[in-house]
Amino acid sequence: MRKATIKDVAKHAGVSTATVSYVLNGVEGKVSQETVEKIYKAIKELNYIQNFSAVSLVKKKSRLLGVIIPQTEDCKQLLLENPFYSEMISGIELKAREMGYHIILSGVDKGQSYLDVSVQRDLDGAIIMGIYQERFYEELKNVKIPIVLVDSYIHDKYFYKVGIDDEFGGYLATRHLIRNGHKKIALVTGSIRKDGVVEKRFLGYKKALREAGLFYNPDDVFENSVTYQHGLKIGRFLSETPRNITAVFATADLIALGVIRGMIETGKRVPEDYSVIGFDDIPISRIFIPSLTTIKQDIGDKGAKAAALLIQAIEEKTLSEPTREVLLTLDVIERQTVKNISIKD
Amino acid sequence: MRKATIKDVAKHAGVSTATVSYVLNGVEGKVSQETVEKIYKAIKELNYIQNFSAVSLVKKKSRLLGVIIPQTEDCKQLLLENPFYSEMISGIELKAREMGYHIILSGVDKGQSYLDVSVQRDLDGAIIMGIYQERFYEELKNVKIPIVLVDSYIHDKYFYKVGIDDEFGGYLATRHLIRNGHKKIALVTGSIRKDGVVEKRFLGYKKALREAGLFYNPDDVFENSVTYQHGLKIGRFLSETPRNITAVFATADLIALGVIRGMIETGKRVPEDYSVIGFDDIPISRIFIPSLTTIKQDIGDKGAKAAALLIQAIEEKTLSEPTREVLLTLDVIERQTVKNISIKD
Repeated sequence: MRKATIKDVAKHAGVSTATVSYVLNGVEGKVSQETVEKIYKAIKELNYIQNFSAVSLVKKKSRLLGVIIPQTEDCKQLLLENPFYSEMISGIELKAREMGYHIILSGVDKGQSYLDVSVQRDLDGAIIMGIYQERFYEELKNVKIPIVLVDSYIHDKYFYKVGIDDEFGGYLATRHLIRNGHKKIALVTGSIRKDGVVEKRFLGYKKALREAGLFYNPDDVFENSVTYQHGLKIGRFLSETPRNITAVFATADLIALGVIRGMIETGKRVPEDYSVIGFDDIPISRIFIPSLTTIKQDIGDKGAKAAALLIQAIEEKTLSEPTREVLLTLDVIERQTVKNISIKD
Repeated sequence: MRKATIKDVAKHAGVSTATVSYVLNGVEGKVSQETVEKIYKAIKELNYIQNFSAVSLVKKKSRLLGVIIPQTEDCKQLLLENPFYSEMISGIELKAREMGYHIILSGVDKGQSYLDVSVQRDLDGAIIMGIYQERFYEELKNVKIPIVLVDSYIHDKYFYKVGIDDEFGGYLATRHLIRNGHKKIALVTGSIRKDGVVEKRFLGYKKALREAGLFYNPDDVFENSVTYQHGLKIGRFLSETPRNITAVFATADLIALGVIRGMIETGKRVPEDYSVIGFDDIPISRIFIPSLTTIKQDIGDKGAKAAALLIQAIEEKTLSEPTREVLLTLDVIERQTVKNISIKD
């Protein structure tokens, strides 16, 4: 069967193609109700499916959202191994689908601009995960579409933002260890960059130490990458190098799982010898043995909120003052990797 | 700065917009080489970015690939918790990007047709993961674009296919347990449907038993869903219900991890009391303690191969007989969850 065209619909309804086009593009005010009904009947009878490419040229609405995931050499690994991204994308896709949008998922190669993709595809908006160089954000602004940054501390009113209070999260994690009697707490973390998520969690760690009157020792901070491998290396190191540390705050669950495995491989037990707390609550954390005590952020919900905020911005459905930033709540999830050492056994 | 239009390019190059359009759409044969060069120069100087929506109407090429992931009530969970999908999507996206395509990622709601999405978006082709009802495939064929099915045993020459030999994989896993001295092997699995991936793995299990002269007992098959929870339940059950089983073949790593946790929670040890082998080699399998012995399929490569096959079909770059099906290799990865019980200790 040949695909029905707009001309077929017009002929079937006995009107001009321009009239059909008005109706399809929502400018029905110019057309009588009777005619509108005739056109809808024809559309139904001919099983006519609107071509979004054509519509987007007229309406300047593609109903397409861009979603960028970090994909540099380092970060390709991240997407593959860090369930964080897949869970977020799942949340974005579901919300977008509910609201009649599709998502184009893409990485950005090093040095490549996203400008091309946005313009080529007539994106209505974009959600950006990951941290990029300043130039990248400046270019994004040139596209003049609403953009939601996930987990970004960029100070620029142009962007919408969805995230968590990472400093508070770092504080919660460290305080949980302190409340369980730990006084010498190592921080195992990805690289601490100014205004990055990791820096905020690090500040929370220092804040909790300070509040408890504990000494902050830079030698207890093990900074490298947000990977299982980094955790593994430091877990082995801590286990084999006595320095009276009793607990570890890992700024991501993946790192925490590496730390635990590194310790167990070198003959130590978690939580009997070392307590470990993570951050994120990725699904593996429940499955892992021992299951991981961690700071839970609802990752799927974060994706859904990012999509909802973006679509709201696109459709300008804000009632009064538009929401520019959404912060999600955080909780300590107690599982099996933190031991209370103030109770002597 | 105002965005350059095709008219600006034409004016700058001193030619008609029709001529620019010819060149942009690859019908350069009608235009002199000198003019082509003038147009490319103008495009570069004006930083003109082609609008794909406009081009797709003319060229019937959108350079967009659809990627469908299962997203029914049950399977939404799958995407979130099963790293299998995210790893595959990462492989697809990278290959597509390398070849100048973008991907639209979407779920398909129960009872919804993919026809609408494909036509609306002028998709050049699509990759389908998961198993759907027959009607779904019949509808797909109506779209008349190349389609690659991942892990499908549908017998229809219309579709391109990328997968593994699941029966051989099931055979490999079971044979590995038998070679380690196990004679009473339980199968813990998702639902066994005709021509599904799981049925093939089940057939491989039976084949290995038969080959070794072992008795196949339907009571040793625990069939439910491809979830961690199902594994957990059966792990507990096996551990608490003595029935001289010594090993488990779980038809997915997620199930295997559940089985192990279920056994450990109820006081048993893996592999000392029970050996367990999985299937897939998802990244958690390496991280898990004990790390999982499993059948490895290269999931990222599977995604890349699916994208390459689809793009080849779209661009009809086949040399002679077109490749319709790609099978990836399988290997046993020995880690910590299978014990050789034929050596008495």
